[in-house]
Amino acid sequence: MTEFAASYVNAGESFERDTNYIEDRIVQDPVAVRALPAPPESKIGTLGFGLSAGAQAWPVESGRYRLVAAPACPWANRTVIVRRLLGLEEAISLGRPGPIHDARSWTFDVDPGGVDPVLGTERLQQNYFKRFPDYPRGITVPAIVDIKTGGVVTNNYPQITLDLSTEWREFHREGAPDLLPKEHLDEMWPIITRVFTELNNGVYRCGFAGSQDAYDAAYARLWEAMDWLEERLATHRFLLGPVITEADVRLFTTLVRFDPVYHGHFKTNRNKLTEMPHLWAYARELFQTPGFGDTVDFVQIKQHYYGTHLDINPTGIVPAGPDLAGWLEPHGRERLGGSPFGDGSAPGPVPAVDRVLAGHSPLV
Amino acid sequence: MTEFAASYVNAGESFERDTNYIEDRIVQDPVAVRALPAPPESKIGTLGFGLSAGAQAWPVESGRYRLVAAPACPWANRTVIVRRLLGLEEAISLGRPGPIHDARSWTFDVDPGGVDPVLGTERLQQNYFKRFPDYPRGITVPAIVDIKTGGVVTNNYPQITLDLSTEWREFHREGAPDLLPKEHLDEMWPIITRVFTELNNGVYRCGFAGSQDAYDAAYARLWEAMDWLEERLATHRFLLGPVITEADVRLFTTLVRFDPVYHGHFKTNRNKLTEMPHLWAYARELFQTPGFGDTVDFVQIKQHYYGTHLDINPTGIVPAGPDLAGWLEPHGRERLGGSPFGDGSAPGPVPAVDRVLAGHSPLV
Repeated sequence: MTEFAASYVNAGESFERDTNYIEDRIVQDPVAVRALPAPPESKIGTLGFGLSAGAQAWPVESGRYRLVAAPACPWANRTVIVRRLLGLEEAISLGRPGPIHDARSWTFDVDPGGVDPVLGTERLQQNYFKRFPDYPRGITVPAIVDIKTGGVVTNNYPQITLDLSTEWREFHREGAPDLLPKEHLDEMWPIITRVFTELNNGVYRCGFAGSQDAYDAAYARLWEAMDWLEERLATHRFLLGPVITEADVRLFTTLVRFDPVYHGHFKTNRNKLTEMPHLWAYARELFQTPGFGDTVDFVQIKQHYYGTHLDINPTGIVPAGPDLAGWLEPHGRERLGGSPFGDGSAPGPVPAVDRVLAGHSPLV
Repeated sequence: MTEFAASYVNAGESFERDTNYIEDRIVQDPVAVRALPAPPESKIGTLGFGLSAGAQAWPVESGRYRLVAAPACPWANRTVIVRRLLGLEEAISLGRPGPIHDARSWTFDVDPGGVDPVLGTERLQQNYFKRFPDYPRGITVPAIVDIKTGGVVTNNYPQITLDLSTEWREFHREGAPDLLPKEHLDEMWPIITRVFTELNNGVYRCGFAGSQDAYDAAYARLWEAMDWLEERLATHRFLLGPVITEADVRLFTTLVRFDPVYHGHFKTNRNKLTEMPHLWAYARELFQTPGFGDTVDFVQIKQHYYGTHLDINPTGIVPAGPDLAGWLEPHGRERLGGSPFGDGSAPGPVPAVDRVLAGHSPLV
């Protein structure tokens, strides 16, 4: 994701996220999905509904699509984690824009020659324009691109991960976890909603507050939610209990960025994540679980936030801290029972082409 | 202190502190001091020398002078601590500018009517101009003002605390500590020098770096010094050993601001102070020692840095964190032997007129 704007802060105002997306879907049975009722407006995605007004259904097909997901972006990071957990690396390839974008587009400046090796484009904007020549909104990641035409199929991030779990089942690896377990769904939606409004988006509400009052209110909301999670995770190994689910993926991508960027850059600084014992041990366990930490590029994360939001960091200087060695320390969460993959198994090593750059994480 | 400038950061450059001051001194025997050799140029002050070229000697006199020291400013904070430790509150009164100054002056905006109740001025600049009508340099704190004429006598902060210890002895309270113990002086000067260049000033070098390279170098220097102190304080209860000295005062004023402002605002974020076990316990002990923590106004500290350096924090928003409750936790430093005041005693309660505002510190 990430909005494109000359300024992220609007004086006197609270931060509001633009939530208009390309809401096409990639599904197993396009005909059947077209017959389902349109989904309610949702910022967390839906299960069991069809297409939004004007949206199209595309068929699941191995090798047809490329997931464009900047390592820096938390909303994109979700999709990279779910793709890894489900073993979809061969079915859906991965394009990775660099950390710094200009006012118009994420760019493939980290790739050799500054061009995505599969799409052949320099700027993700080109892929948006191939689909909609006058595309008027933000050039956001994640975006799934139809490789043949080069056009963006969807950038509807709350739905993408749900569809990877439910529509791409035939390509899941053996032992892939069920990230949407039926017996936990009723409990999961309110948690996912609260994690979205209070944490995933709540950190931005702190950082882009346009007044002291807006910031103070945002900070209070954020920490009420952090305290709720700290208490819940004291007795729950994962958010829903014994195994990882979609909810954990969505919380993790915010937690892993908390100390490196949100604490200082967004002023979410009551405590560091490392000072919240249960949340920190929980985040550490996920980081050490294949599919989570092996998708995290701390260097690009810091470069992105500190280098892009120049209206709150005009010098563009990227802090050298924090010390990240603690991410590899024992987490001790086994005492709570359960295990990340339940009856399934962890994904294997990251394919070489998808690996986080050496030195960009305590893992590599 | 604090320079006055439209911008604190100069693109491409390292931060350099203006070190031109009004170097007059207030001494017990002006005639004798005038006869002593001029001091070498010094950023840490000197003992045993006379006056700098062009400087004057003023006589020690109870009730004649007012120390103007903004609670926000670390360089001013030194003088307030030493005044308290030595029991000079009745001999030298205290004026306190508010946290936010404009491009020209600290102001007395927190005082009733926006006027210093003794000096009758709204802006410290007026007191500088009473002394030198065309005073061309920064209007800095601490400044000692001659109450009758309203003119600034000295703003030479590295020398002020040394003179409070050595020249004002007749007004020291009973039980006042010797902050410049003869047996430790040889060891103390290099420590004070390193604390000044690497810590007191080192945090500013990080925050006002004009390039990524300048910042990276400043960060490396700072943390080398922090690691040196962490190791030293593992075995030394105070910097010089068993009792507090001038060196501890100078280190404390930077440490107490570390997590509230330097960590995020100046990007000194390898670790929080609270993550350095010995330094943190040491800082906590000093905070809990009468004369140290009771001079610290965390609210004004944060308002000052975040509200004044708008070129690195353009929104002017002041973070609500960090949580400060830990400052009152037991420090356990007694095991290292010694005691803060040695054979002396702690100062009594803060006079009502000098107290930190309620709610501005975990102590009040």
